[in-house]
Amino acid sequence: MSDALPAPRVVREDGLPSRVTVFEVGPRDGLQAETDIIPAPIKAQLCRRLYAAGSRDVEVTSFVPPTWIPQLADAEQVVGALEVPDGARAVALVPNLRGLQRAVDAGIREVSVVVSATESFAAANLNTSRAGAIDRAVEVIEAATAQGIPVRGYVSMAFGDPWEGAVGYDAVTTAAVALHEAGARTIALSDTIGVATPGHTAAIIEEAFEAGIPVEGVALHLHDTYGQSLANVHAALQLGVAEFDASVGGLGRCPYAKGATGNLATEDLVWMLHGLGIETGLDLEALAATTVWLSRLRNVRPASNVARAFAAAGLDAIEPVQEVTTA
Amino acid sequence: MSDALPAPRVVREDGLPSRVTVFEVGPRDGLQAETDIIPAPIKAQLCRRLYAAGSRDVEVTSFVPPTWIPQLADAEQVVGALEVPDGARAVALVPNLRGLQRAVDAGIREVSVVVSATESFAAANLNTSRAGAIDRAVEVIEAATAQGIPVRGYVSMAFGDPWEGAVGYDAVTTAAVALHEAGARTIALSDTIGVATPGHTAAIIEEAFEAGIPVEGVALHLHDTYGQSLANVHAALQLGVAEFDASVGGLGRCPYAKGATGNLATEDLVWMLHGLGIETGLDLEALAATTVWLSRLRNVRPASNVARAFAAAGLDAIEPVQEVTTA
Repeated sequence: MSDALPAPRVVREDGLPSRVTVFEVGPRDGLQAETDIIPAPIKAQLCRRLYAAGSRDVEVTSFVPPTWIPQLADAEQVVGALEVPDGARAVALVPNLRGLQRAVDAGIREVSVVVSATESFAAANLNTSRAGAIDRAVEVIEAATAQGIPVRGYVSMAFGDPWEGAVGYDAVTTAAVALHEAGARTIALSDTIGVATPGHTAAIIEEAFEAGIPVEGVALHLHDTYGQSLANVHAALQLGVAEFDASVGGLGRCPYAKGATGNLATEDLVWMLHGLGIETGLDLEALAATTVWLSRLRNVRPASNVARAFAAAGLDAIEPVQEVTTA
Repeated sequence: MSDALPAPRVVREDGLPSRVTVFEVGPRDGLQAETDIIPAPIKAQLCRRLYAAGSRDVEVTSFVPPTWIPQLADAEQVVGALEVPDGARAVALVPNLRGLQRAVDAGIREVSVVVSATESFAAANLNTSRAGAIDRAVEVIEAATAQGIPVRGYVSMAFGDPWEGAVGYDAVTTAAVALHEAGARTIALSDTIGVATPGHTAAIIEEAFEAGIPVEGVALHLHDTYGQSLANVHAALQLGVAEFDASVGGLGRCPYAKGATGNLATEDLVWMLHGLGIETGLDLEALAATTVWLSRLRNVRPASNVARAFAAAGLDAIEPVQEVTTA
């Protein structure tokens, strides 16, 4: 588990980044919302398959108290069973200093922290207030940084809240700037309930830039509840954003609307990025095969459009068209 | 059934159109791909619900020979049972002069025609060659126009073909220009298999502009096989395109990949457009309710993200956030 620096950022003539980091959150954010408990060896195998598919940026688990999220109570076991390739990241979410210590003891060398743009989500999911969550996250960032451990931050409910409705930009930038100034390397502006549309997405990203967060420090974390994720990614790419969270096979439900679509699926994102000629380092067919493998194990229908289409077509290597000039 | 002229086109400061025509293809393109036969009264009721939800642009059926598409063998019955509000369109697809005559006899006052950008699709689905399909469509356009009946054109397989793979831009523009010059009012560039990505979409639209088709004459017909539709709509909006085909509830399968996602769902498109502050005249909740109604009748799961989320939330009126300035 190295903490290699990211590759230099290159912007193309059309203004889009030439390479994008697909931050894989399936094993953590995805699985934590699924109700069937997956054994730790399967989780470790999922991570192995993701690394083998070319992913170098995987959030592997969360060191929250085991009673909070039973699905992730096996964090130590999963991390112990990982085989992380050279240059790849194995990030673990930690809720507080106690979680940071558990993660470090387990061998984790990069962590993530969550804050909330709304009071309701802070109370319901982080057991504290908005300000309290920021204080706790800053405490973790400082302790981690002192040990040379990089930190990634999430600002949850940045686009809308199931209890409060619309969320003000100020609440988002206040939280994002606090994490950035404390030393978080990247801030994932997170549409936890999937309500964002492209104009809204662009506006929030521009607010973050204006508040002093550089484009390299901004990531986007999307859920596909209303099917809007890729349009929002397209708007963000046009502003130079080059890091997007995604979950293999669209793992992850919407905890606020049972039956709704979950996280943006990695394969669907990669299909678009490759079609735009943007490098990801990922193997689309290997990702879809991973989704089909896990779906069969769990006896569920794959939630990603690409995996469903590939499975229907017998997993033949289909690739998005990039450019066509001949008749 | 009037043939009212479209409302004047207004472009906003951000370059996006202020109003978009959502051309509803659920009763025709959607149902034609579904394998369970829906009785004609239910089809007519579907159209009534769509008009009641604010749709003024509905493709209601197809006058192909009954043996070609058994689902649409009841075209006369469906049209006979329609109640079309003043100012609304009830368009029927016609494959040839015989179909045009049947449609006119049934009371239809606007038709659509299909050509193909590829030889394989022309052979497999239109029983002719690429050039033969254009000749047949031009014949229909001329005969319809002579009777004062406006015609809409589709160029199928414009972005990729399951047999031929990548499709050249020249094949698309040749077909589109032929329909345009013959008098078709709008040409729907059609991603029949859903492979397009935003750069590809923008490139094909720009080719159509360069070939002499004005922006008012360009529509986009998308399938969500790989989840890319709304990102492509976003790219097209930025070029001023203001007409998009969609199918209520995502009705319609991908005939080339069983189990894959079908047409772009009307509700998902409307969620994005309303979130962008673009007028559609459509009532999102009424559309989602229509999807849930038909899904229950057919005993299937709704295919649109929005309808699934609404159904999960008890169909409460949730609306996309447009703009947020308060904290």
